[in-house]
Amino acid sequence: VIDSPLGRLMGAEMAEQPEVLARLAGRFASIAAAVREIGEAGDGLRGVAFLARGSSDNAALLGRYAIEQQAGLPTSLVAPSVLTAYHREPEHFRGWLLIALSQSGRTPEIVDIAERFGRNGAHVVAVTNDADSQLARAARLSVALEAGPELAVPATKTVTAQMMAVLAIAAGVGSGGGVGAEEAARLAGEVAALLGDTAPVEAAARTLAAVRSLAVVGRGACYPAALESALKLQETLGVMAHGFSSADFRHGPIAVCGRDVPALLLAGSGPADDDTRALRGELALRGAPIVEFGTGAAADGGWPALGHMGECLLATVRGQQLALSLARRLGIDPDQPAGLNKVTLTA
Amino acid sequence: VIDSPLGRLMGAEMAEQPEVLARLAGRFASIAAAVREIGEAGDGLRGVAFLARGSSDNAALLGRYAIEQQAGLPTSLVAPSVLTAYHREPEHFRGWLLIALSQSGRTPEIVDIAERFGRNGAHVVAVTNDADSQLARAARLSVALEAGPELAVPATKTVTAQMMAVLAIAAGVGSGGGVGAEEAARLAGEVAALLGDTAPVEAAARTLAAVRSLAVVGRGACYPAALESALKLQETLGVMAHGFSSADFRHGPIAVCGRDVPALLLAGSGPADDDTRALRGELALRGAPIVEFGTGAAADGGWPALGHMGECLLATVRGQQLALSLARRLGIDPDQPAGLNKVTLTA
Repeated sequence: VIDSPLGRLMGAEMAEQPEVLARLAGRFASIAAAVREIGEAGDGLRGVAFLARGSSDNAALLGRYAIEQQAGLPTSLVAPSVLTAYHREPEHFRGWLLIALSQSGRTPEIVDIAERFGRNGAHVVAVTNDADSQLARAARLSVALEAGPELAVPATKTVTAQMMAVLAIAAGVGSGGGVGAEEAARLAGEVAALLGDTAPVEAAARTLAAVRSLAVVGRGACYPAALESALKLQETLGVMAHGFSSADFRHGPIAVCGRDVPALLLAGSGPADDDTRALRGELALRGAPIVEFGTGAAADGGWPALGHMGECLLATVRGQQLALSLARRLGIDPDQPAGLNKVTLTA
Repeated sequence: VIDSPLGRLMGAEMAEQPEVLARLAGRFASIAAAVREIGEAGDGLRGVAFLARGSSDNAALLGRYAIEQQAGLPTSLVAPSVLTAYHREPEHFRGWLLIALSQSGRTPEIVDIAERFGRNGAHVVAVTNDADSQLARAARLSVALEAGPELAVPATKTVTAQMMAVLAIAAGVGSGGGVGAEEAARLAGEVAALLGDTAPVEAAARTLAAVRSLAVVGRGACYPAALESALKLQETLGVMAHGFSSADFRHGPIAVCGRDVPALLLAGSGPADDDTRALRGELALRGAPIVEFGTGAAADGGWPALGHMGECLLATVRGQQLALSLARRLGIDPDQPAGLNKVTLTA
């Protein structure tokens, strides 16, 4: 399976993650310091808004949680349609940090909106993989992911790099208590270990090989990873994967699960993760097959209990591994899914 | 089909919507005025946060769009886990409006979080169906939906009432340009007309009767309705319905659609809706059956071009009608889906 010609690019880019993350971890403290400087130059930050689409949106969600936890500041995910289709100017974001996430830094809608926030007094931070991009140039602070060219259509190494970048930004906004430079450096090593530990993924892929739809469930740090893993399964396999928060899932959507619709549970060692594990019983009553990655999963020894938001990256890597393994089993080439393009052009 | 014993409660509660909405429209201006007064009593509002779970979350999303458009104020959807599981106090929300949406007003998590926002200087507005509830009593302003008891498990009349309530609140926060009291009163009539015009829904239900998973797609005002319709299909039918923003859908998730996985498009007359209709061609190339509700759908004459955010209610009603019709065709009683409870108790 590993020597498959399918998903060669995706596999290679996934394998680069420890190196990309280690490099970024080396700049973690300086990114946090640059963000702190922006806050201290003014009257302090009034809030933090995120601007993103697709996979970047899931990294933004992690950033939002990290900032709310560590700084207690208001956070907002910008709805691009309000600014583009409805032509509203962001005139009440003076003193806010606007974190724009775009792999290419060239998505026109993202560049346009970031510029408009900047003109209205927001401090724009660009998180991109191309430090010469329009978005990077439009920003007060450019955080380069330095992940190298990403050629496979499913974004992998840029997503985990974006996640680490938003954790570094959160460290600069907050007053401690979150992931710091040391945790980040260790995280790069943990991702390497996880990538080397494929047995839990292959076991999960055997269970899920014939599946056409599934629920991907997590809470806290694992919720953005659940959304990202669902997106990866959608776009690489065409499988109807739906990411849910454990808290919402229990009160209605769990009805979708049954014999033919399994649940993939992502649950680490954070205070919200027990909610996810608590779903096991009810899912079993419904006859739904359960696949679980995380610290409480007997079969997933590779996922250490980190006790912080960085577990989002571990869950995200598990989702990538699963998507790639399933694609190979199903004879699908995830490097070039039919009909999808890399740079998004949203009107 | 209409005289089915299945979904009698759900059908009856759906039928009450024009009356509930007309009553609420009669209080639209006074709700807006009470909200405006809160803003004027202080130094003006600094932002608007929403607190909700499940269906209420979708009404909150509509409120967020309406407020961003009409007031340009920062908005935020509160992540309950940050406050409950991670024990963070909302100390930076002084001068914010906190809009807490809960049908019963008794969901302990929502009550607790609203009280904590209030203690930290946020202006709490409770939107509930029970003006004597704990949540209503904890609030500075209580907006009663007066929808009457909701007995069916799938929330219908309280959801559209919540949507109208958040539009009234948006009118009080904003400086015009959105739905006003007159538009609200007309909207109640339009909902009545839509409920009487079931032919498009029955045609759609014929197409979708055997479907086990589908994508529900919308943008702008129809995006919250897409999420709400997907939730309704999940909880009443156990169908894997996934709500998507048209803008995200096109760049990856569209891969889930094909011969066996149709797309339900919700597209009204707003500036973002053309994006949704633009998906028709690509969906057809993938062989995916398309069902469409909205102003551009030849078969859906009952949906008038309102040109404002109120179309979210029309799209939401179409989703309710579809869920009920499909349930009856499939012999499912949506009043009592197996294993679901009405009041949510999230740890």
